[in-house]
Amino acid sequence: MRPEDAYKELLKWSRKLALLESIVEILEWDQRCYIPQKGNTYRAEQIGYVAKLRHEMMRKPEVGEWLAAAEGGAWCSDPLLDESVNLREWKRWHERATKVPSGLVEHIARVTSEAQTVWAKARENNDWKSFEPCMAEVFALKREEAEAIGYKEEPYDALLDQFEPGVTASLFASIAGRIKEDLQKLVDSVRDCGKQIDDSFLCRRFPIPIQEKFGTMVLKRLGYDFNAGRVDITVHPFTVLAGPSDVRITVRYDEHDFRVGFFSMVHEGGHALYDQGLDAEHWGTPRGMPVSLGVHESQSRFWENMVARSKGFWKFFYPRLLQHFPILADVSLDNFWRAVNKVAPSFIRVEADEVTYGLHIVLRFEIERDLLNGRILIRDVPDIWNQKMKEYLGIKPPDNKFGVLQDVHWSAGLIGYFPTYLLGNIYAAHLMEAISYQIALLDDLLERGQFFTILDWLRTRIHLLGCTYRPKELISQAIGQEIDPSLFVGYLKRKIAEVYGVVS
Amino acid sequence: MRPEDAYKELLKWSRKLALLESIVEILEWDQRCYIPQKGNTYRAEQIGYVAKLRHEMMRKPEVGEWLAAAEGGAWCSDPLLDESVNLREWKRWHERATKVPSGLVEHIARVTSEAQTVWAKARENNDWKSFEPCMAEVFALKREEAEAIGYKEEPYDALLDQFEPGVTASLFASIAGRIKEDLQKLVDSVRDCGKQIDDSFLCRRFPIPIQEKFGTMVLKRLGYDFNAGRVDITVHPFTVLAGPSDVRITVRYDEHDFRVGFFSMVHEGGHALYDQGLDAEHWGTPRGMPVSLGVHESQSRFWENMVARSKGFWKFFYPRLLQHFPILADVSLDNFWRAVNKVAPSFIRVEADEVTYGLHIVLRFEIERDLLNGRILIRDVPDIWNQKMKEYLGIKPPDNKFGVLQDVHWSAGLIGYFPTYLLGNIYAAHLMEAISYQIALLDDLLERGQFFTILDWLRTRIHLLGCTYRPKELISQAIGQEIDPSLFVGYLKRKIAEVYGVVS
Repeated sequence: MRPEDAYKELLKWSRKLALLESIVEILEWDQRCYIPQKGNTYRAEQIGYVAKLRHEMMRKPEVGEWLAAAEGGAWCSDPLLDESVNLREWKRWHERATKVPSGLVEHIARVTSEAQTVWAKARENNDWKSFEPCMAEVFALKREEAEAIGYKEEPYDALLDQFEPGVTASLFASIAGRIKEDLQKLVDSVRDCGKQIDDSFLCRRFPIPIQEKFGTMVLKRLGYDFNAGRVDITVHPFTVLAGPSDVRITVRYDEHDFRVGFFSMVHEGGHALYDQGLDAEHWGTPRGMPVSLGVHESQSRFWENMVARSKGFWKFFYPRLLQHFPILADVSLDNFWRAVNKVAPSFIRVEADEVTYGLHIVLRFEIERDLLNGRILIRDVPDIWNQKMKEYLGIKPPDNKFGVLQDVHWSAGLIGYFPTYLLGNIYAAHLMEAISYQIALLDDLLERGQFFTILDWLRTRIHLLGCTYRPKELISQAIGQEIDPSLFVGYLKRKIAEVYGVVS
Repeated sequence: MRPEDAYKELLKWSRKLALLESIVEILEWDQRCYIPQKGNTYRAEQIGYVAKLRHEMMRKPEVGEWLAAAEGGAWCSDPLLDESVNLREWKRWHERATKVPSGLVEHIARVTSEAQTVWAKARENNDWKSFEPCMAEVFALKREEAEAIGYKEEPYDALLDQFEPGVTASLFASIAGRIKEDLQKLVDSVRDCGKQIDDSFLCRRFPIPIQEKFGTMVLKRLGYDFNAGRVDITVHPFTVLAGPSDVRITVRYDEHDFRVGFFSMVHEGGHALYDQGLDAEHWGTPRGMPVSLGVHESQSRFWENMVARSKGFWKFFYPRLLQHFPILADVSLDNFWRAVNKVAPSFIRVEADEVTYGLHIVLRFEIERDLLNGRILIRDVPDIWNQKMKEYLGIKPPDNKFGVLQDVHWSAGLIGYFPTYLLGNIYAAHLMEAISYQIALLDDLLERGQFFTILDWLRTRIHLLGCTYRPKELISQAIGQEIDPSLFVGYLKRKIAEVYGVVS
């Protein structure tokens, strides 16, 4: 088989995989937004069936032959050519899929599906004991998966690599270790400065239809294309990549907390801007797909924190917000901006501020890594969790609902996923740093509500490149330097200094 | 292979087909209710891909072997056993699928997909000439399909059989012929009686959220389960069978015509009650599926016309309607009931009243049958249409938009579909007749808004039986007599006499 013909077969194969994946996206979107209650059981069957078709297609024996035949193509000389990029990633997919036995894949699917139901109930009842056996089983199976995939240093590497290719446990541990101390110091300095920020007005009454209207206006301004997307309401917000021109956002509103709806909307909007910015010509191939969860998170966090929590942003939007919500008339721009940047240790990760968020991640990473390496036991996890919370954030969860049972990830088998959240934050800070150097009059643009130049910068350097580079390289290329976690800490320090008027 | 094992394989195969079909249902539902505009192109690819998977599965060579092996099962002796029912229908499916060459199936899919786009534009621009070549191609291809499938008397049989198994063109022609004259006489008698019914108040302002509220209340009363369904807004209403407990309705509201939203909601509600009443235990097999389009239409028309246009129904609901729409306070129950039963020839089928509706169908049936038999030419269809309209309904369409271009069916390749609409009406009248004999105090139940006994009657005799009997047999069994089209005419005559106070 000629390399060109093999490549063509692989292209068709890749696009069929994308069709199946995008169909699952719609089925899940419907399930989380609209499905009637009794429809859930059959929906699980539909999704399971398409997932099975996808898995079978991924493992197709011909794929190995095509990959081998395509090796000798003219594109070999340049790893940045579309063909080389795609071949590199397809090889990764196929290797992964063939290394893990089908039986194990199905076993994990079954156990995690059940574990999520058990977890939801355990969380509701604050009943760790009922979840403990499931958690043990999930970790055992994921360890088995890691062994099947293989790794250089430790099992965690095999799992993390799936979400953030090229990052290992020890690399992330060194980043986390350095950042942990700095973040703790920052939290201490905020506590010790004695300054209290009033954010009580954010909990006045904000009617949801008006939140919707305001949020839609903001999303449009940021560059989100409503002709290629839409916004729906759900419980746990997420973004849906249902096609090259169909990228949907979901959002949760709280009538009595402005932050909940608005920042989740901008956060998901950031994810969606990435997906809407992918190169449509390469849809269905790695060249036209998001490169990693970390980079994805960098986009959501960039818009949520670096942009929508900046003063410039609110200089433009606050007068408009007041038009929508006259109830804030007595609150100054400055006090509003301080309130949305308030730092305070809290129990729930998804509600954490920019500073403490990282500590929530480090805690989870340390626990799941130690579990995989057999250094701690499942049954001790709640205590370890609480000790670490006390140590890193100075607070102790009142119960496991506010502690070890809060996240869905472990029950869902998403081990090795948490680090991507922190990496996303670090990447985002880097992007903002680079943008503020490279885009003239950035503050001026923000204050005038002009986001096109920023979006265009991200489009060219991140979105349109798909999987051309590995995640770390992609960010390094974009910012013109190596990634340096201390830069993230520096960004936070400056912000704290501004918000709290203190220098740590 | 043992018959039992072959049957088991067929069961799995049938349930996979149902999974694929139900996924298409959701993709189409989303496309017609929620998809962002730019998402349509890729959605067509997604649907096309699943349709292809379904077609491949339908034609699987093993299926023929399983069917042959299952022939000798213990169930052979009784054609009403679940196994016998399923095997009979599976055989039909598989024969049909293998008789039509894949190339032709794909050709038809491509041509009808394009033809629908051309048709939509032609209709908008009232431009028959631009659609004529597409129509010619569609009819030529469908004739080819009919030849591939085979028939006893004429090509039309092969197409009609797909929608209404067991009904042939000549059988339907004899029904249509008898009914045509009777309906024309009825239309004449209404025109000649000189009585004008005022329905202008139905075009007052009916705010859509209140229409929604009222309609929801009615649907709940009729027995529609909102935990296994939902109502969404679309342009051309339809019902979605997305799973054994997921049956959705779509509806179109007109703020200035109460009839549009309300009767489409009850119509689709009737379809949905059928689907929600299927035997869930047999989901994914013919035994648990609707038997034909004609029987499906009988359910929608039964609830829409026999129930929701009856006086008893409004005796219960009219006071409630007035609570929702005080704007009708000056309209008496009697005048309201007359208005929703007004008979008047009109151009558009979907807006036609109960009496003239049948004439619209007969006209279409005659044209498509003559086309397939080569008795008329495509280019003459608009003139023939207009002549028939003049002859049957006494009115001549002002242009082709109000004439030959109004329906999507021919562009979509749905030839042989129209008869099922009229059959549905005939079946519905029969069901009402039987119900009014068999259910004691029926009027009393209607007037008290009690529909459970009626629904239960339909559940036991129609819904729960799935494909146990062929359509005509099913209805005959349910009503305890042979189907007699003149009974439908009799029903209409009585209604007209009541509404107009005339006897024809």
